[in-house]
Amino acid sequence: MTHFVTYDDVTDLNALIQEGLNAKQNPFADQALGRNKTIGLIFFNSSLRTRMSTQKAAQNLGMNVITMNVGQDSWGLEMEEGVIMNGDKAEHVKEAAAVVGKYCDMVAVRAFAGLKNREQDYQEVVLNQFRKYAGVPVINLESATRHPLQSLADCITIEEFKVRSRPKVVLTWLPHFKPLPQAVANSFSEWMNHRDVEFVIANPDGYDLAPEFVGKARVVHNQDEAFEGADFIYGKNWSSYEQYGQVLTQDSSWMVTMDKMRLTDNGKFMHCLPVRRNMKVTDEVLDSPQSLVIEQAANREWSAQAVLKGVLQNL
Amino acid sequence: MTHFVTYDDVTDLNALIQEGLNAKQNPFADQALGRNKTIGLIFFNSSLRTRMSTQKAAQNLGMNVITMNVGQDSWGLEMEEGVIMNGDKAEHVKEAAAVVGKYCDMVAVRAFAGLKNREQDYQEVVLNQFRKYAGVPVINLESATRHPLQSLADCITIEEFKVRSRPKVVLTWLPHFKPLPQAVANSFSEWMNHRDVEFVIANPDGYDLAPEFVGKARVVHNQDEAFEGADFIYGKNWSSYEQYGQVLTQDSSWMVTMDKMRLTDNGKFMHCLPVRRNMKVTDEVLDSPQSLVIEQAANREWSAQAVLKGVLQNL
Amino acid sequence: MTHFVTYDDVTDLNALIQEGLNAKQNPFADQALGRNKTIGLIFFNSSLRTRMSTQKAAQNLGMNVITMNVGQDSWGLEMEEGVIMNGDKAEHVKEAAAVVGKYCDMVAVRAFAGLKNREQDYQEVVLNQFRKYAGVPVINLESATRHPLQSLADCITIEEFKVRSRPKVVLTWLPHFKPLPQAVANSFSEWMNHRDVEFVIANPDGYDLAPEFVGKARVVHNQDEAFEGADFIYGKNWSSYEQYGQVLTQDSSWMVTMDKMRLTDNGKFMHCLPVRRNMKVTDEVLDSPQSLVIEQAANREWSAQAVLKGVLQNL
Repeated sequence: MTHFVTYDDVTDLNALIQEGLNAKQNPFADQALGRNKTIGLIFFNSSLRTRMSTQKAAQNLGMNVITMNVGQDSWGLEMEEGVIMNGDKAEHVKEAAAVVGKYCDMVAVRAFAGLKNREQDYQEVVLNQFRKYAGVPVINLESATRHPLQSLADCITIEEFKVRSRPKVVLTWLPHFKPLPQAVANSFSEWMNHRDVEFVIANPDGYDLAPEFVGKARVVHNQDEAFEGADFIYGKNWSSYEQYGQVLTQDSSWMVTMDKMRLTDNGKFMHCLPVRRNMKVTDEVLDSPQSLVIEQAANREWSAQAVLKGVLQNL
Repeated sequence: MTHFVTYDDVTDLNALIQEGLNAKQNPFADQALGRNKTIGLIFFNSSLRTRMSTQKAAQNLGMNVITMNVGQDSWGLEMEEGVIMNGDKAEHVKEAAAVVGKYCDMVAVRAFAGLKNREQDYQEVVLNQFRKYAGVPVINLESATRHPLQSLADCITIEEFKVRSRPKVVLTWLPHFKPLPQAVANSFSEWMNHRDVEFVIANPDGYDLAPEFVGKARVVHNQDEAFEGADFIYGKNWSSYEQYGQVLTQDSSWMVTMDKMRLTDNGKFMHCLPVRRNMKVTDEVLDSPQSLVIEQAANREWSAQAVLKGVLQNL
Repeated sequence: MTHFVTYDDVTDLNALIQEGLNAKQNPFADQALGRNKTIGLIFFNSSLRTRMSTQKAAQNLGMNVITMNVGQDSWGLEMEEGVIMNGDKAEHVKEAAAVVGKYCDMVAVRAFAGLKNREQDYQEVVLNQFRKYAGVPVINLESATRHPLQSLADCITIEEFKVRSRPKVVLTWLPHFKPLPQAVANSFSEWMNHRDVEFVIANPDGYDLAPEFVGKARVVHNQDEAFEGADFIYGKNWSSYEQYGQVLTQDSSWMVTMDKMRLTDNGKFMHCLPVRRNMKVTDEVLDSPQSLVIEQAANREWSAQAVLKGVLQNL
């Protein structure tokens, strides 16, 4: 693996999931691999799990970690080419990415969607500019349209907890009052399209994801119908792709409750976190044994470790 | 030692002080103990000494350190149970603590008192929620009502500098224009109650600490009387416990001066830092050989190292 | 080397440049030297290159790194002596520096000029207070009037790319709408005064640097004249020293273009970064093979490593 920005960077998903499970069994087995290697973690947005799990995974592999909060530790970066830089951005990504690539053996970047301009967000400018200019492998810590480290952790979690060979997996929209990016939902859908699962997406009208991410998923606009017989319920809020970045509804009947979970076949509840309790999903569900959210978050460490190992082996 | 949140977590204070003194003599003797162990440092509030000394102590022990500034690196955490999370807190401590506990072998937390609601502060919600949900040992980096790593450093310092077997130790209130928490004063009093010292607390009317922290200390409202014959003057400002969080006076006659120090028996001056010079204590005192504030701050490293070693040994 | 605050701390510049070049060839050769040594990086101002390159250099040498953002991780520091601290600064540098010096084997500090008061800035209060009170070696990560780690990287870069034994080096002012410190320009001039180069400074009227930094440089107020036959063009904006901290002109004819570069003798373009494209220098120049800005920034790692090694050897 050279970069890890989209699903297309993965050559063998089954092998990558297995690497994650191996890391979980034996976290320090590859500690010599990362010796004297440095990963730069560049955050344009806040992070808890991604920050900690990636740092932990790198340290498990014996690597050094340098963290940079853009706009806090340093200053804003200009992403556009050819611009006269007389505004509030003091440095161009051309220089910043190239320089970080000189100090680090790989660069991991988090940069959320602005949700103002669909074309711009879906062009993945920040990640692509880093990929173009860093000169070293680039790893996606959640970009405008994707969160592949999360998706890999989700695949690992489903692999661990599935009770039939081809489980029914439902990605369901959840209500929220703020406009959130589509990245986690897009990415989960993209990865599920490559797994041997029955994959259904449930969301209200106006919330269909971009067709290139939906792929061959069955999309339904009735949550109860989707939940029937499901093995995994993957909850997430996202703002509208069609009416880009808008909150079209906060319909609380889409909140996941125990009554909803009873429609499933003893289904497990998953969510990437952070999750707003009793708005997106009830305390009762999250505190029940059916919830996998902590195990899923814990798997972020092994997902990151599998990816970093793959990149290290290819340096 | 499993947790280190209050004095009650200490099984043998003399042994713990001795561990601190041993670490000071031989900082790297236990470096194998922390190998491949990670401590998460979670800051809800600013920190200089605590941040640096705990990180240093962990590194002395061979540990990895992951630092997280809540509300800066990540987002606000909801502490209350059963709430509908439709406000500005994006994540519940139930998830956050559990997840951090998955990545880290121990979690250290700093969360000051809000000083708005005495009952809430004195319930120590943040530390107790972490203790409840983290699933790993929790270490107090200063909570609403206590600062035990400071108190242990104070005990080490008194042990090093005492010239008689049962010294007279005076905790004195100092003037300040801002309302400050009682945590350092509470904690110092709690720990002194377990030491073989003559312990006196001097503060103006209305500034008595909570009875459970005062313990068997003699409380006087006359600073000069308290200073007479003292071996150690421990200065600190705190806001009122009775009229909770209020600044009742800024009486500058409570500032520690050389004239005041002459009332002692060649007493030493201690303060946890940061200290506002010439408001709480004069330059003359702080710059004199009687001041121990730098030695005391330096002992924070050995205090933290003794505690982390104790926790590591019990993992 | 004990401290590294000004050029005067350097005993043998040629040897130091050679150390940088050695580190670049063999980054991990001195890894045992820094074992169990800790550097504290104290930032009063934002940083990208300095932060990352110094951390990387320290890790190459096997050191531990503790980073502190003053006023963000901790609180503001009072620098003035004898003051009554009843304002917004909660701690005096006397304590802060001494305490950091207890936890760290060396302390590196970044503190920019305020540009309000020339005398105060040119007294280098922050760096000098740290030097006075830290009790351990102090390293300048850019101070009010100097940026010696940058200047050493610049010397290394010129050494690598010069094509004649005594190159012509031109420091040229560039237009900018914000008032910037003179530190990089001062420092570059100070260091070039100690190199075997033909050194010319080009700036508009009113922008002459302080005489003690200009030294024996030839100062011209005509950019074209300065560029003629130059081997290296070192671009930088600075605010006026004479009318202290003022922006006297934003004259765009001082922007470096390809037409300007054609006046040189196939000269190389250097800039410390960050650089505002198409305001200070055109895309065409920065994206041409004549630009050394990335190589120069990369050399910050080796500059820092040479300095840290020198300090470590003297501990």
